[in-house]
Amino acid sequence: MSISSPRPPGRPQTMAEKILSRRGSQTVYAGDLAVVDVDQVMVVDSIAQSFIQRMEEDLAATPKFPRRVSIVVDHVAPASTVSVAQAQKEAREYAAKTGVRLFDVGRGICHQVLMEERLAQPGWIVLGSDSHSTTYGAVAAFGTGMGATDIALAAASGKTWLRVPESVKVTFTGELQPGVTAKDAALEMIRVLGADGATYQSIEMHAGDRFTRGERMTLANLCVEAGAKAGLVVPGGEILTDYGYDIPDWVYPDPGATYVREVELDLSALRPRMSAPSEVDNVHDVTELRGLKVDQVFIGTCTNGRLEDLHAAAEVLRGQRVNPATRLLVIPASSEVMEAAMQDGTLLTLMQAGAVLGTPGCGPCMGRHQGVLAPGEVCVSTSNRNFIGRMGDKDAKIYLASPAVAAATAVMGKIALPEDVAQPVGAV
Amino acid sequence: MSISSPRPPGRPQTMAEKILSRRGSQTVYAGDLAVVDVDQVMVVDSIAQSFIQRMEEDLAATPKFPRRVSIVVDHVAPASTVSVAQAQKEAREYAAKTGVRLFDVGRGICHQVLMEERLAQPGWIVLGSDSHSTTYGAVAAFGTGMGATDIALAAASGKTWLRVPESVKVTFTGELQPGVTAKDAALEMIRVLGADGATYQSIEMHAGDRFTRGERMTLANLCVEAGAKAGLVVPGGEILTDYGYDIPDWVYPDPGATYVREVELDLSALRPRMSAPSEVDNVHDVTELRGLKVDQVFIGTCTNGRLEDLHAAAEVLRGQRVNPATRLLVIPASSEVMEAAMQDGTLLTLMQAGAVLGTPGCGPCMGRHQGVLAPGEVCVSTSNRNFIGRMGDKDAKIYLASPAVAAATAVMGKIALPEDVAQPVGAV
Repeated sequence: MSISSPRPPGRPQTMAEKILSRRGSQTVYAGDLAVVDVDQVMVVDSIAQSFIQRMEEDLAATPKFPRRVSIVVDHVAPASTVSVAQAQKEAREYAAKTGVRLFDVGRGICHQVLMEERLAQPGWIVLGSDSHSTTYGAVAAFGTGMGATDIALAAASGKTWLRVPESVKVTFTGELQPGVTAKDAALEMIRVLGADGATYQSIEMHAGDRFTRGERMTLANLCVEAGAKAGLVVPGGEILTDYGYDIPDWVYPDPGATYVREVELDLSALRPRMSAPSEVDNVHDVTELRGLKVDQVFIGTCTNGRLEDLHAAAEVLRGQRVNPATRLLVIPASSEVMEAAMQDGTLLTLMQAGAVLGTPGCGPCMGRHQGVLAPGEVCVSTSNRNFIGRMGDKDAKIYLASPAVAAATAVMGKIALPEDVAQPVGAV
Repeated sequence: MSISSPRPPGRPQTMAEKILSRRGSQTVYAGDLAVVDVDQVMVVDSIAQSFIQRMEEDLAATPKFPRRVSIVVDHVAPASTVSVAQAQKEAREYAAKTGVRLFDVGRGICHQVLMEERLAQPGWIVLGSDSHSTTYGAVAAFGTGMGATDIALAAASGKTWLRVPESVKVTFTGELQPGVTAKDAALEMIRVLGADGATYQSIEMHAGDRFTRGERMTLANLCVEAGAKAGLVVPGGEILTDYGYDIPDWVYPDPGATYVREVELDLSALRPRMSAPSEVDNVHDVTELRGLKVDQVFIGTCTNGRLEDLHAAAEVLRGQRVNPATRLLVIPASSEVMEAAMQDGTLLTLMQAGAVLGTPGCGPCMGRHQGVLAPGEVCVSTSNRNFIGRMGDKDAKIYLASPAVAAATAVMGKIALPEDVAQPVGAV
């Protein structure tokens, strides 16, 4: 199915080429068209109606492998309007009728839920109706976002086709300093690559044994903000096997594979970063933005709503109070995260500091409910997009940061670093 | 200021007459017009813009006693749309400018918050921009709902005027059987009085030392569903003094006071009750409705979102799972309730059973976000109104019940009593 000229067999492959070859019927390279098996199709609530319509009306098909399709009610959950409620009702009915998986209101954000449910695995191909489906690259799955029509075709046939992307190799060196996080590394990566710097490319991240699964999710999640088709973190050390993943030998990129660009990021030189309005690659040192008054801080999302993110926030907020002129929303990425954070006392610490908790899900990330911004308001968010109007009014401003910086900002009422927060009286 | 004919002094007074006389300048009786001091004016987010406009544009006034005015952001919190966010922003700015109290997103439902903050006290007059402001009668405060204009006049002048209501005397006798709650008593009271059975009257409830403060709030809260102007629970035993309230001697009704109607309710004969669509007084024994399939169960609101309500739900849900065909939303009435329920393990029990938690506030009670119902859906709710369209679509159906019945319904996926829920394996 190649449209390129023949090439010698055995040419070294990138990770994307490896996975797309293995899940297709032949060895493919960047530029080839590949038809591949799809291991999981993920549909979010907001696209579910379109998906069902494509399946039932346009394709007159049922899912070929129902258990390879997951519908997640997360984007506006619980429902904020009758039409949202109606769409979610139809999604439930469709799941009951066809046997596809349904993760209903409150279970959490699609990417987090699929990861927790082990519906993304090393070497898999996961298509999602959400652009941040690159997240599955955290566990060496080729995850990518597609529209309702492509998603429906994949659900109906069990396959998809795509042009094999070129790859950008990003190598992380050095070690993060205390207080600097994977989010800062991810924002820096987007700054270096640029918002359209990896359009339709696979960002192949070489990090050795650095970064937890959650941190890898943060990195892979942000890749789409450079326009990437996929964001693959090469498994390293025991990180993934510790989580019980079986990593096939063939999934690793070959030495000598072809990259369109190679970038090295020295983590040891990195300081806390912040993406200023209104492009994700408008990245600055937090110190450059320090002191700007902030109306709302939002800690959550598929980028940074995990247990370790809540821990980082709690570390800053313990014994502190959210500034009276600022409100702090904390929305755990999933019910599992929320339950764990409840059990280990993290949520109590956050509440005692004045955090407002919300139902696991996407929260105000897309400006559809639960913390929409008014004209002129400023928000520091741990999410992944700061586009104009993203979280509400077009005259609101969004700054993206790590949970630690977000928490410090909530305490100070203005953009701040954790070191700006005075130790509470009596703290050791 | 009486418009009635003169009457002999010292004539016995109802509780409403007592409070309105004491807070006014003369002794008044039902039918009189009274001008009274207002101890607290409560404004909810959804009426805040109108309130501010009345104050600034129509009256060109500032609050006479800023600390006697509270704005509570609870009806749609966190904000679900830009216009809601804008209204809340204006409320914050107004509070900062005038010094009125502000209880922002996540603090909780207006009535619960004012009660926790001791902004309703025995003998006080509390005006709220929410119809369920009768709730303050739980602590022998004359609480009543008014529109933005009346509220603004009260805030500007520190006073309000009203026709002194006739009173209905409701006497509770006997003791509730296990599994029967104050909510059942309240629904039964509304059934007996009828939805327009106490229009512009004060329901004076004589319960002796029965009922906690929270249960008294449930009773007083529902009074407006019989059309009442106020719902006053006569302090009894140590109930209120245990909570630290100072109860003035003059607040109690006189023996021989005049009532337009007297009703006796034998609590010992009461079984769990449920209000069926679409009027609150359409009250049935739960057994009559048992088995109806339910899509959503909502535990929360100013009627039944307190710690004791969550305890009652947790007792039923411990070791159980919410039926897969039903979703259970639990929204604590305030941050204090949520924190306490987190600390004592109640929230964990609820989450482990599959409950979806939401931000303290009104939740889906008015159908404005966080669990709006789709056409055809059936909801069992612990709230206070089951009108057509109240929680979303006009073709959705709402059944009102106690937290215990709601929890049992969530487990069974259909209307059920706690006794219908099988004991979990291993339970003693």
